[in-house]
Amino acid sequence: MSATTALRSLSINNINPHVKEAKYAVRGELAVRSEEYRAKLAKGDTDLPFDQVIAANIGNPQQLDQKPITFFRQVLSLLEYPPLLEKEDVLLNQLGYKSDVIARAKWLLKTVGSVGAYSASAGAPGIKESVARFLEERDGFPADPKDIYLSGGASSGVNTLLHVICASPKTGVLVPIPQYPLYTASLSLLNAKCVPYYLDESKSWGTDIEAVKGAYQKAVDEGTDVRAIVLINPGNPTGASLSEDDIRAVIEFAVEKKLVVMADEVYQTNVFVGKFHSFKSVLRSLQKADAEKYKNVELASLHSISKGMVGECGHRGGYFELCGFDPEVQEQIYKFVSISLCAPVIGQCLVELMVNPPKPGEPSYELYKQEYDGIFSGLQKRATALYDAFKKMEGGSMYLFPTINLPQKAIEAAKKEGRAPDEFYAFRLLDATGVCVVAGSGFGQKENTLHFRTTFLAPGTEWVGRITKFHEEFMNEFR
Amino acid sequence: MSATTALRSLSINNINPHVKEAKYAVRGELAVRSEEYRAKLAKGDTDLPFDQVIAANIGNPQQLDQKPITFFRQVLSLLEYPPLLEKEDVLLNQLGYKSDVIARAKWLLKTVGSVGAYSASAGAPGIKESVARFLEERDGFPADPKDIYLSGGASSGVNTLLHVICASPKTGVLVPIPQYPLYTASLSLLNAKCVPYYLDESKSWGTDIEAVKGAYQKAVDEGTDVRAIVLINPGNPTGASLSEDDIRAVIEFAVEKKLVVMADEVYQTNVFVGKFHSFKSVLRSLQKADAEKYKNVELASLHSISKGMVGECGHRGGYFELCGFDPEVQEQIYKFVSISLCAPVIGQCLVELMVNPPKPGEPSYELYKQEYDGIFSGLQKRATALYDAFKKMEGGSMYLFPTINLPQKAIEAAKKEGRAPDEFYAFRLLDATGVCVVAGSGFGQKENTLHFRTTFLAPGTEWVGRITKFHEEFMNEFR
Repeated sequence: MSATTALRSLSINNINPHVKEAKYAVRGELAVRSEEYRAKLAKGDTDLPFDQVIAANIGNPQQLDQKPITFFRQVLSLLEYPPLLEKEDVLLNQLGYKSDVIARAKWLLKTVGSVGAYSASAGAPGIKESVARFLEERDGFPADPKDIYLSGGASSGVNTLLHVICASPKTGVLVPIPQYPLYTASLSLLNAKCVPYYLDESKSWGTDIEAVKGAYQKAVDEGTDVRAIVLINPGNPTGASLSEDDIRAVIEFAVEKKLVVMADEVYQTNVFVGKFHSFKSVLRSLQKADAEKYKNVELASLHSISKGMVGECGHRGGYFELCGFDPEVQEQIYKFVSISLCAPVIGQCLVELMVNPPKPGEPSYELYKQEYDGIFSGLQKRATALYDAFKKMEGGSMYLFPTINLPQKAIEAAKKEGRAPDEFYAFRLLDATGVCVVAGSGFGQKENTLHFRTTFLAPGTEWVGRITKFHEEFMNEFR
Repeated sequence: MSATTALRSLSINNINPHVKEAKYAVRGELAVRSEEYRAKLAKGDTDLPFDQVIAANIGNPQQLDQKPITFFRQVLSLLEYPPLLEKEDVLLNQLGYKSDVIARAKWLLKTVGSVGAYSASAGAPGIKESVARFLEERDGFPADPKDIYLSGGASSGVNTLLHVICASPKTGVLVPIPQYPLYTASLSLLNAKCVPYYLDESKSWGTDIEAVKGAYQKAVDEGTDVRAIVLINPGNPTGASLSEDDIRAVIEFAVEKKLVVMADEVYQTNVFVGKFHSFKSVLRSLQKADAEKYKNVELASLHSISKGMVGECGHRGGYFELCGFDPEVQEQIYKFVSISLCAPVIGQCLVELMVNPPKPGEPSYELYKQEYDGIFSGLQKRATALYDAFKKMEGGSMYLFPTINLPQKAIEAAKKEGRAPDEFYAFRLLDATGVCVVAGSGFGQKENTLHFRTTFLAPGTEWVGRITKFHEEFMNEFR
């Protein structure tokens, strides 16, 4: 305790203990050190053994080389400065804007009024209608705008849903491990219980329903009131996608135990192998076959503009759709979101553009398609390069959450520094190569296993080679 | 309980009770009904006794007639679509952009990279430096960028600070009544205690330090651990500004009782009579005179782009500055904000533009000044019109949180509908005139007093006449 602490209202010992408990490794000490290295390099420092920091700790495509989609940003420029719409000829003939850009901007302005005005609490009605049409086309089932809530990124949607679900310190939520640490951090803040179920590394990090059932039973036996299950599909950090059978098994289990299904589907367009199946489409198919049995399944599915080919993290946009929720509960959700007034309106507009991009035959379509496909194949190429690199690494498994098996000497060295072994490894990796990853412990991992998570957004693949070279040297040092 | 409830995980009876308890009248049932009227009118319905809904329940200037400031929005348009910067001659000669608009956009892009990328958790470093310079010029005392946290509007800053402060159900926070309901709602959600201190209506809703002391002592006697005091200066909903003496008295009390001072200063430019004094400037002056006594005062002061002449609510931008906080506590605040990744980056850029607008002699200055002054005098004119109107109303007091004294018959009629009398009045006002205000009970008021709160942002002053006419008729009906 510092000498002055007793003179203040707040000290580390008397603030909200749940804030203290919350862990968020994606932007923790390692990330802070990488920012220091970045600042050093920017000042022309040449002491470091690398000349570039690679932020593979967080999916932030536009900080790296991913260019925004032209159609999206042209529309946004008009929304920010509507007087440009009075100069259509300049836009069309001198600035390369197409007529569909202008038409969309006019429509969005009519819908939101001004992007500087608060929208309705759950989002601008016209934009929610667009999202509903997108969901209908994606799933082949109706969607109702009143069940759609626009949010400031998916994080804010998760925060809303967990706030409503977590009724007491006994409330438990099933969360896949490894997971994106938002879920564990939010549950800590809400003083509720994270009920971990382990994904199966031997089956490409698949969701094993038996593991879910086991985790549920163990929690219930310990007195936990398990109320919901989180699925990250496709998975973060593992990249695995759920099959229709897996999804059905989860829904069956949710019916049996009356669990809210929270389907985090923000990576729905990042599928490089196999196919994405939405929880909603599988649920509606089941309901078609047996309406009575499935009619009360509570599903919340989340999406975001931060991921995929859109990659607009900084704009903080997203939405969630509710199916089967009690109307009285939905009223409370509405009240909760209204306390923070509304999601950023320009982010809401980007949600609209994401779900309703240019269509074949429209003036902006060709460029849109070209940019979209270019980003997709770039991501695919880097995913493959990392996959291949990790396969070659001593003790390394595949996937972008690779296992590392560290020698005993390294584990002891880590202990001496007061760090978990994978954390120790990640710090050494950063110091040696400038590549910032996240230690597996930040995402959760089975006991006695070690991993790290890396994104594959950084430009080029040269830095992947830096990782394998470091790994070799590290293993030799501690052998 | 609905028939199906028992089949679901979530019902109104088993969700988070603190979400249920939270009240947020600004966007409650009355606001929902006003939106229904607005939709009816938009569809051409002529059944209603008015042809326009006036949203005087929420400060949302750009939903009404307030135009955004040209300089701000021109810069934002370039941030959203940077390729425009390659066409400088078109921007300058055909679209009316000035060279300082272009220079600022280039600088901001250099600072944030892309507005589609996450920034550092507490905000882009260059923007925090701009805010620090603004604070130094405003207050005449140094400001450190590391103590500045950019947030998604002031609401999100309040949420962060209260999250850290509220350690247990015994934690209490002194909140002025009447107040903006964000504070009471957030304290409900955090299961902490709101310790109300009443503003003095007879002294223009001034802050009476004796009322603060009384409220504190009463709470402590009841076992509450009072940790912080909120000041809204200038006041919402009352419009009152604190004098330097008042601020000094609050700081003295905070020193004596070791309270965090939360100064909500979002209305700092909305002062039509008197002068705004920042808590920081008064604190630093006190510290200059007696460093030892005041060195550990913990002050958090908040600002926002939503209010004043900026009025950019939909962009969700703001910041808070911390003075005198324990570094270990600041680390926890950093971790907490990092869980939601970062504030919207385009909103961060608007914060920069707000604190660093065009200066005399710069190309955009003249237009900026003209627009800024025009908005200011429009607000002033409407504030005066409402002030005069409420003075004339039977039983009405002045200020924009006018007292209403309702006849016994009206109070009984309200009771029959299961509503508070001021709520009953506000619904009747909406139904008769289309003007949506907020009942005083939504902001808190002394027992046996009734008020309503209205903003003065709606265009024109004709609707003010509608209120006075309604009031006359209402009083006659229930006399």
